[in-house]
Amino acid sequence: MRFDLVVRGGRVVSPGTARVTDIGVRDGQISVLGDLSGVDSARTIDAAGLTVFSGGVDPHTHIRWPFLDATSHDDFRTASIAAFHGGTTSVVDWALPADRSALAGVRRRQNEATGDGVLVDFALHCVLGPDLARGYDEVPDVVEQGCPTFKCYLTYRRRGLLTDDAKLVRALRAVAAAGGIVGVHAENPALHETTEAELRAAGKQDAMHFRAAKDNLVEAEAIHRAIFLAEQAGAPLMIQHVSTREGVELVRTARRRGLPVFAETCPHYLVLTDEVYEGPLGRRYLCSPPIKSTEDQEALWAGLADGTISIVGADHCAFTVAQKEAPASAFDAPNGLPGVETRLPLLYSHGVAAGRLSEARFSEVIAENPARVAGIHSRKGILAVGADADLVIIDPAARRTITATRLHQDTDWTPYEGVEVRGWPKYTIRRGEVVIDDGRYVEPADTGQFLAGMPHGFDTVR
Amino acid sequence: MRFDLVVRGGRVVSPGTARVTDIGVRDGQISVLGDLSGVDSARTIDAAGLTVFSGGVDPHTHIRWPFLDATSHDDFRTASIAAFHGGTTSVVDWALPADRSALAGVRRRQNEATGDGVLVDFALHCVLGPDLARGYDEVPDVVEQGCPTFKCYLTYRRRGLLTDDAKLVRALRAVAAAGGIVGVHAENPALHETTEAELRAAGKQDAMHFRAAKDNLVEAEAIHRAIFLAEQAGAPLMIQHVSTREGVELVRTARRRGLPVFAETCPHYLVLTDEVYEGPLGRRYLCSPPIKSTEDQEALWAGLADGTISIVGADHCAFTVAQKEAPASAFDAPNGLPGVETRLPLLYSHGVAAGRLSEARFSEVIAENPARVAGIHSRKGILAVGADADLVIIDPAARRTITATRLHQDTDWTPYEGVEVRGWPKYTIRRGEVVIDDGRYVEPADTGQFLAGMPHGFDTVR
Amino acid sequence: MRFDLVVRGGRVVSPGTARVTDIGVRDGQISVLGDLSGVDSARTIDAAGLTVFSGGVDPHTHIRWPFLDATSHDDFRTASIAAFHGGTTSVVDWALPADRSALAGVRRRQNEATGDGVLVDFALHCVLGPDLARGYDEVPDVVEQGCPTFKCYLTYRRRGLLTDDAKLVRALRAVAAAGGIVGVHAENPALHETTEAELRAAGKQDAMHFRAAKDNLVEAEAIHRAIFLAEQAGAPLMIQHVSTREGVELVRTARRRGLPVFAETCPHYLVLTDEVYEGPLGRRYLCSPPIKSTEDQEALWAGLADGTISIVGADHCAFTVAQKEAPASAFDAPNGLPGVETRLPLLYSHGVAAGRLSEARFSEVIAENPARVAGIHSRKGILAVGADADLVIIDPAARRTITATRLHQDTDWTPYEGVEVRGWPKYTIRRGEVVIDDGRYVEPADTGQFLAGMPHGFDTVR
Amino acid sequence: MRFDLVVRGGRVVSPGTARVTDIGVRDGQISVLGDLSGVDSARTIDAAGLTVFSGGVDPHTHIRWPFLDATSHDDFRTASIAAFHGGTTSVVDWALPADRSALAGVRRRQNEATGDGVLVDFALHCVLGPDLARGYDEVPDVVEQGCPTFKCYLTYRRRGLLTDDAKLVRALRAVAAAGGIVGVHAENPALHETTEAELRAAGKQDAMHFRAAKDNLVEAEAIHRAIFLAEQAGAPLMIQHVSTREGVELVRTARRRGLPVFAETCPHYLVLTDEVYEGPLGRRYLCSPPIKSTEDQEALWAGLADGTISIVGADHCAFTVAQKEAPASAFDAPNGLPGVETRLPLLYSHGVAAGRLSEARFSEVIAENPARVAGIHSRKGILAVGADADLVIIDPAARRTITATRLHQDTDWTPYEGVEVRGWPKYTIRRGEVVIDDGRYVEPADTGQFLAGMPHGFDTVR
Repeated sequence: MRFDLVVRGGRVVSPGTARVTDIGVRDGQISVLGDLSGVDSARTIDAAGLTVFSGGVDPHTHIRWPFLDATSHDDFRTASIAAFHGGTTSVVDWALPADRSALAGVRRRQNEATGDGVLVDFALHCVLGPDLARGYDEVPDVVEQGCPTFKCYLTYRRRGLLTDDAKLVRALRAVAAAGGIVGVHAENPALHETTEAELRAAGKQDAMHFRAAKDNLVEAEAIHRAIFLAEQAGAPLMIQHVSTREGVELVRTARRRGLPVFAETCPHYLVLTDEVYEGPLGRRYLCSPPIKSTEDQEALWAGLADGTISIVGADHCAFTVAQKEAPASAFDAPNGLPGVETRLPLLYSHGVAAGRLSEARFSEVIAENPARVAGIHSRKGILAVGADADLVIIDPAARRTITATRLHQDTDWTPYEGVEVRGWPKYTIRRGEVVIDDGRYVEPADTGQFLAGMPHGFDTVR
Repeated sequence: MRFDLVVRGGRVVSPGTARVTDIGVRDGQISVLGDLSGVDSARTIDAAGLTVFSGGVDPHTHIRWPFLDATSHDDFRTASIAAFHGGTTSVVDWALPADRSALAGVRRRQNEATGDGVLVDFALHCVLGPDLARGYDEVPDVVEQGCPTFKCYLTYRRRGLLTDDAKLVRALRAVAAAGGIVGVHAENPALHETTEAELRAAGKQDAMHFRAAKDNLVEAEAIHRAIFLAEQAGAPLMIQHVSTREGVELVRTARRRGLPVFAETCPHYLVLTDEVYEGPLGRRYLCSPPIKSTEDQEALWAGLADGTISIVGADHCAFTVAQKEAPASAFDAPNGLPGVETRLPLLYSHGVAAGRLSEARFSEVIAENPARVAGIHSRKGILAVGADADLVIIDPAARRTITATRLHQDTDWTPYEGVEVRGWPKYTIRRGEVVIDDGRYVEPADTGQFLAGMPHGFDTVR
Repeated sequence: MRFDLVVRGGRVVSPGTARVTDIGVRDGQISVLGDLSGVDSARTIDAAGLTVFSGGVDPHTHIRWPFLDATSHDDFRTASIAAFHGGTTSVVDWALPADRSALAGVRRRQNEATGDGVLVDFALHCVLGPDLARGYDEVPDVVEQGCPTFKCYLTYRRRGLLTDDAKLVRALRAVAAAGGIVGVHAENPALHETTEAELRAAGKQDAMHFRAAKDNLVEAEAIHRAIFLAEQAGAPLMIQHVSTREGVELVRTARRRGLPVFAETCPHYLVLTDEVYEGPLGRRYLCSPPIKSTEDQEALWAGLADGTISIVGADHCAFTVAQKEAPASAFDAPNGLPGVETRLPLLYSHGVAAGRLSEARFSEVIAENPARVAGIHSRKGILAVGADADLVIIDPAARRTITATRLHQDTDWTPYEGVEVRGWPKYTIRRGEVVIDDGRYVEPADTGQFLAGMPHGFDTVR
Repeated sequence: MRFDLVVRGGRVVSPGTARVTDIGVRDGQISVLGDLSGVDSARTIDAAGLTVFSGGVDPHTHIRWPFLDATSHDDFRTASIAAFHGGTTSVVDWALPADRSALAGVRRRQNEATGDGVLVDFALHCVLGPDLARGYDEVPDVVEQGCPTFKCYLTYRRRGLLTDDAKLVRALRAVAAAGGIVGVHAENPALHETTEAELRAAGKQDAMHFRAAKDNLVEAEAIHRAIFLAEQAGAPLMIQHVSTREGVELVRTARRRGLPVFAETCPHYLVLTDEVYEGPLGRRYLCSPPIKSTEDQEALWAGLADGTISIVGADHCAFTVAQKEAPASAFDAPNGLPGVETRLPLLYSHGVAAGRLSEARFSEVIAENPARVAGIHSRKGILAVGADADLVIIDPAARRTITATRLHQDTDWTPYEGVEVRGWPKYTIRRGEVVIDDGRYVEPADTGQFLAGMPHGFDTVR
């Protein structure tokens, strides 16, 4: 018995159990779990005192992403390296339509990632724009292509993304029939656009006004409606980036009624509050939905712990400070926060170390469930024999103060500047290659692979 | 003791009780109830074997009403006479804004009614159009003017009436603060407009296609959303002309949760089914929401009986056959059905005589609750001492087959042609004047009066 | 037109309306309502400034009632006079079985009332003891006899009254089939008996210990179970003397689900709190269920106002101080409080005058609904033409401090000693006879009549 | 690397995943999972084509159990061998109190098992009899002793086991405070005893009458009440052997409300229907609750699949035919069915092979969840590295017709005579010892061990 890599003596967290044991890696997969004392290995990592999880699966990145006139600053290669530093080994990125075709969009996006020199493994969500030449007839082909997860934007009128209720119902039906799931960006356009127009007219265009235009009702109404339409359509539904306590409660109620409704939240809603919009740096924190209050934050943590919220995505979008601050009005600034690197460490620190999440639940929301929803769970998200040898080895004793200069995201700031965290990834392993080795990035031999998702992955979410 | 009129020996239905007794009328009011044997009276009606109810209050008429290029054919005088024949002595009509002012619209409408020579007493609902110069700042003044009931159209984009969610929330808040109530025309615009556009493009523009564009989800989604927004706004809500079983169930659930949500339905949803759209006369029956199925009809009757639905309005709109059939496309034809004359007899026949409604509940939904919602219940809707002497005396033994030629509505057709009814108004009395005397119209000396409604009437609905 | 009595110019509260008008009484009935200026009358009461309600119907009296070794001190004549002073003109008393027959019990009780010289009109509830010779086969005969309301005691083991779940289910089914309704004394026997036994063993036998043995769960569990069994049996249910906030919530939930579940509460739960058990007079206040906390009191008022609780009964049981204090142990003392005289004034004062109940709701819970439940509403509980001329005329401006020496209940104390009330009955009229005339009792010519109740009265509760 | 045993090439079902791989066993534990090609092993089992699960954990056995005058026929040694044949490697048996002490009862039961020569590993539930000398003060000591799971019988009055509501509430509170969980035998005593008495009096004492005395309401009421009392007590609750659709629905509702309420069902409710009581062999099938209808059976399967029901226990109690038939009356016959051997095969066949349960859910309800509830999941119920090497290797292709003569339970009949099953255990391994080897029993070197359960195991149920 000989292995390419053995991780020895770590606390290994796998579904249903956590124990100190060894992991034997061969050919990029987890070959054995268990006592490997005395076996040969090309490389051994001593994980005594460390905790080993399945590598993070970030279900929500927007790499090199257009927003009105701006395009976010990173590319698939730089984002991959940042992801590795943060213990994430796979991402699910978003594909916009190309030439009014969702299918062409998926293919183009796959090529962009490869062209960029992607290093993480990646799957793709398919954005169902409102103006597709063939409508939703392409959906089965997109699923066949390995993308069973879709997105409808219920707002973003100016970006040409707004999907109305008629299109949403059709999307829900078409996607459900193909075994996929629709995720929604749930904000009510009329509610925030009306306030925005008034604020603009009044010359109130700072970050705090942007946030004020999107009170909790903006999100709550859209979630309430999307759940109803999904139920009427007999379709599963993912609510992306839930930010409000009302949203949590609506999802909880739906799930208790037995509906296949799922929710995602993001680190910024869990760690920050809307006080960030008040200072001179407020402009940087623009994102949609905007960050809410302490009460909302608490409801989100409770929802993660009790199973209401199934996944945590970064909603990574790495604009620079200059890009965020360029437009005269906050309402014209690009939305989105960098976060693919900090997602997993923040959840470990503010979740596990702070006692809000068990190690098992942490692993589910940061890796297992994202992989299940995307239908890539036969290889990803689970630390089990036969799965890809994607591992993140965390040093629970590490203490770190987050600062942009120590991060690797291809932008010049972080929303978490000065935030102190407990625990940090010491090693990250992607398909058996040690890409973060005691904190230092090591170029892997193999590039990132496209992960074709299987339909009905959401059925298996835990 | 001397009376202007005594109604003798009828079965008198008043709140909480029904007995054979006498009614003494003086100065246009009910002066006494009880045994009046031997008293003098200028006029006596022998009501032995007949049933006496408070005169009908129709909460939903559109007299002389514009719809795109057409205007409905009647006026307040002709509609009044038709109403009298059908036992209705008061109506609540709708006032559109004038010069982008809701307040001006109410005043104009009041003048129109008077100018037409209105004979029924009338109150007004105030339509809150989406394009008011002063927004909803006028609401307190409108309430002060005697109009505490408002309407927002959630569809009718081409008519310039569509109120979006932002405006709806503001309307709900403004009206609630003033002690009023918003009613909504609840249909989801995107859902039916999308189907309509496709049907038009396919050359499918018959009545059955009009109905097909508005499946039950069109109404259900709008009701579901309106209830949520009203709850969030802390406002009462009336759902106008509910037509679907889903709508009934949503209202029932809301009311069981203790929300101040009320519902109206109309005779056409209770008596007809969507088979009417299939034949050559289908065009005539265009109305919004369109008439639905037998299952929906049954749910509406059950909702009326169990208190889910509080009022029955005619939604009277008297277009002629020529007007309905003029446009090339059913989608361009005027919506609305004549019905102010047939509302009360149909409810008596298909409700009381058919065993679906008690006499007490019939009187509540046809008169008392409409008066309470409109805030005119100190004078109208209740057969009690001190109230206006508005009475309808029904002969329960009468049998009649409805036909347009025997009706008095100022149009050339009726949706109920050939429908057989049990019971029919033999006498109608408006403020003590016998306006229908053994079936014949008698011109009253006094014209119709404007009824100023008090706020918070909806609080008293039974 | 000539009347035996005219009540002039009072504010007359009748179903659905309240107005200043006149009431003409003839032959013991309300002959006319309305303007009676100028008519002749044998007697006229000037009610200007006063409020006229239908006479009180007390749905819960235990006159001359056995409790272990004691029998309460009054009889039907003395209780009648007390009731008149408090504006109550009808009572529904309880009949225990006689010779193991419920039917014989009802007949015996009717004779006892007549033998005592009863003056109020009275109906009877039939107690279904657990040891009836013919089981519940007598139920149809009892209903036929005019008693459609029944009672099962879910506790009172030592008094031989305890009905177990098996008997309760059968009673529910038998009574529902006969068109009647079962009321339950809802306390869980095991819960309080166990605590009682321990307290007795510890020598803790004061009033406060009696109350401690019956915490809120004692009542809540029994209500929860009774509602479930009634639902399973397809039967209507009355929860007698609800005393806890949990009980209110359970009934509210059941009613919102559409179940025919009704509730009664009593003045002592609405006006007093369990602090009464702490002082040296604590023994006097023993009753079952015992009086609860301020939070419970508030929930009961809210339940009365929102329709959760339909009726208020005195649960009148007039033991003397000596009777209450005779036994060595509070656990052996007779349960029950005198209250037929104070029920209506307390509800007017602490309900209407205090702004907790509208006049209309006050009249419903104190008279109309009790009459409806008992099936005697064609004659009682409603101030309407043709109904019995039972009236209570309240002076809203009166102020009184309750004290036993000014009351007429045949016992030597009142639970409300020192309580200040606003409003007091100035006149009470029973079938046209003025039995309380400006505060003074006047012997009526006619004795009280037995009121035969009709089945299904509960269906009409408002 | 050398192992005591290697299981090669089976389809290995472990939490969250199922794959073809190898299992290496050393020192009675699962030492490694994964590719073990080429390693040395003292023994190798070729599992190609077979499915490997964690060994069954039967959460409900009554070995050598008294019921009125009878004692079930087996002992811990014979029951162990039967369990092994059926793929079960651990049982949780019940300890009655000894000398009115629950703690002494647990200790005595442990000695009985050891004295019998127990071979399966075993944990114990502690029966909280109603007549304990120290009440529930012993509960923390019992938990400390390794028994965090308790039982209250809500019926069985004649056996002296009936726990009333007062005691139940106290048991719930005491056990919750100690981190344990109370399970209830949920049948309403009054309901079935009353019917039983009448049937006995009428000479109706056959099996079908026994079943008739316990209609669905008997169980439903007790479950409804137990859930309410547990909620009020703030305690978790297990409903043992749910047999009715009403019971499933009550548990589902409670769980959807977020209450820590769990349920067990048994193979006889899942595989048989109450037709078994009608024939001449009806007496044999007496058990409590009795087996119900097809509708109930379907509801139970649905509840298992959707997470409402968490565990499946045999409720094994091995009376002989003679014992069952000895009493003159069915009401005096011992209750209970043999089943420790057939539980797992029946669930595999009628669950997994029939398409009603996934392999993952099967493993959860048959092993993982029972281990979690009992708090023994660090060693048992999960096929994971470091857990005890308890395995059952099923041949999915096997077909077998169940017959008593091929079973090993120490009794002369089986309820499943003639039932055809798909799949059967081919190997059973208990702590690394192959106790069933290609279908043949092999005496293990080591006896069964007592498993000390940890508190709060139920918190981890999936």
